[in-house]
Amino acid sequence: MSLKYGVIGSGAIGGYYGGMLARSGEEVHFLFHSDYDYVKKHGLKIDSVNGNFKLPSVLAYNKSSDMPKCDVVFVCLKSTNNKLLKELLPPLLHQDTVVILIQNGFGLEADLQKDFPNLNIAGGLAFICSNKTGDGHITHLDYGKLNIGSYSCTDTNILEKVHSDFRQADIETHIVELYSARWMKLVWNIPFNGMTVVLNTTTDKLMTNINTDLLINQMMLEVIQAANRAGCSISESYADEMMDMTRKMTPYSPSMKLDFDSHRQLEIDYIYSRPIEEAAKNGYDMKYVSMLEKQLRFIEAQYLK
Amino acid sequence: MSLKYGVIGSGAIGGYYGGMLARSGEEVHFLFHSDYDYVKKHGLKIDSVNGNFKLPSVLAYNKSSDMPKCDVVFVCLKSTNNKLLKELLPPLLHQDTVVILIQNGFGLEADLQKDFPNLNIAGGLAFICSNKTGDGHITHLDYGKLNIGSYSCTDTNILEKVHSDFRQADIETHIVELYSARWMKLVWNIPFNGMTVVLNTTTDKLMTNINTDLLINQMMLEVIQAANRAGCSISESYADEMMDMTRKMTPYSPSMKLDFDSHRQLEIDYIYSRPIEEAAKNGYDMKYVSMLEKQLRFIEAQYLK
Repeated sequence: MSLKYGVIGSGAIGGYYGGMLARSGEEVHFLFHSDYDYVKKHGLKIDSVNGNFKLPSVLAYNKSSDMPKCDVVFVCLKSTNNKLLKELLPPLLHQDTVVILIQNGFGLEADLQKDFPNLNIAGGLAFICSNKTGDGHITHLDYGKLNIGSYSCTDTNILEKVHSDFRQADIETHIVELYSARWMKLVWNIPFNGMTVVLNTTTDKLMTNINTDLLINQMMLEVIQAANRAGCSISESYADEMMDMTRKMTPYSPSMKLDFDSHRQLEIDYIYSRPIEEAAKNGYDMKYVSMLEKQLRFIEAQYLK
Repeated sequence: MSLKYGVIGSGAIGGYYGGMLARSGEEVHFLFHSDYDYVKKHGLKIDSVNGNFKLPSVLAYNKSSDMPKCDVVFVCLKSTNNKLLKELLPPLLHQDTVVILIQNGFGLEADLQKDFPNLNIAGGLAFICSNKTGDGHITHLDYGKLNIGSYSCTDTNILEKVHSDFRQADIETHIVELYSARWMKLVWNIPFNGMTVVLNTTTDKLMTNINTDLLINQMMLEVIQAANRAGCSISESYADEMMDMTRKMTPYSPSMKLDFDSHRQLEIDYIYSRPIEEAAKNGYDMKYVSMLEKQLRFIEAQYLK
């Protein structure tokens, strides 16, 4: 039995992973926003470090109400748009649909569950450098691993099937414990997203200055500390791994930096405020992270007037 | 007996206080740098909230070796230039000269004492909004109090005389305990200097955003905590006083913001690194302040290449 996939938010992340599944022969229904007309006519173009390809004809929609019910729905919106899910999701849902939130941050699944108490929810962690570089055009620069973990999805078979479909599509993927996985992702996302915005710079410049290199390491350790207080067991050496990985990366502007450059709303709630609240519940004050959050809120407020 | 005054660094601070003493009839010898030729010809112009005035002829020098020995020398250089004092000061010094460092930060007197082990050193704390707005032209926007405290000056009579000369010159002044006074000054200087640079803004904008308003208050409390660990007894309500005072202030760019705007070296060593070291000696980690220090070092390094 093959799964029917839906993608809500077909940009750098949704377009890439959905595109890879579609290329591999899966049935994938894509919800587009501004790119709809272009993709309907010209299809989807993916330039990837692993080889460029085109999908001349994709199952593209511009309204979720036109989409079929799907077995698995990937939500790849900016989390600043998650309030739209209450309206966007219902047409795609049947009794057993699993919704997988491939987004960064903490608290996403809990918020969605409040609106859909019986929904099967999972989370996805994308380790990827990928950007939307034009209409229907995605550029995949580096990495690509996608880890998936259940939040409230009790049917492990369907997650195993998703897992195997991704492997079939040449995507490295693992089934993970979601709570820890979300914190581990934040170890990288928290320092680099915010610091590239506040200092208006790129990852490589932060790593080659001894002051910001040290600060980023300290911030990573703060996130690890918060996670471990919450019951995870992330080794401090994970910060060193993340530092080494970033040193080897192509100079990179994280997604929040791109949002800042385009004067879009920043994903501060789920990447900063919710993890800070979660840490506080466990009696831990992430001071570096809180300072960064406040600086980001100031910066955003200056242009979102 | 009247004192012979010298001013090293006759800018926004030195030009103003020295100018006020000169207007009041004191003998004040000014060392100028780039403004020398202009001042020699046209004198010094001070536009002050308390009334504008001109000093058509001032005792101006462009080399300290041309200056007479003075009883009191005010050092009003940017602290980034304090390494020059080893050469600049000796011509002005007699056996009993008192050197008063009217500069922001911590550790200034200790560093100078290393180079001049027998020198009588005091510190000055200027509570003033004042800018150099042109050649030989100083604009005094607000406040003006100058507090003075001994570092290694055992002759209290001379400090009393300076004190009384300033009062004569319509400058509000107090003799204070220097160690505490330097920390108290940092309660304002640490958050506002750095935050206006990192967020490229002015004091009023930081105060009207709830996030940065809170962060600045937290940073002030961190400085107070560090001071108290070092033996001071500054009340936490002093932070509220500083917040209220700043709310009432004209929108202001602190001196570090002006240095940043002109791509000059920033006074990070004495305003950030030395207080951080002093706090660490007492077992206290000023996390917000350390983060700000590192962000400032990154920003400075990007333009001082």
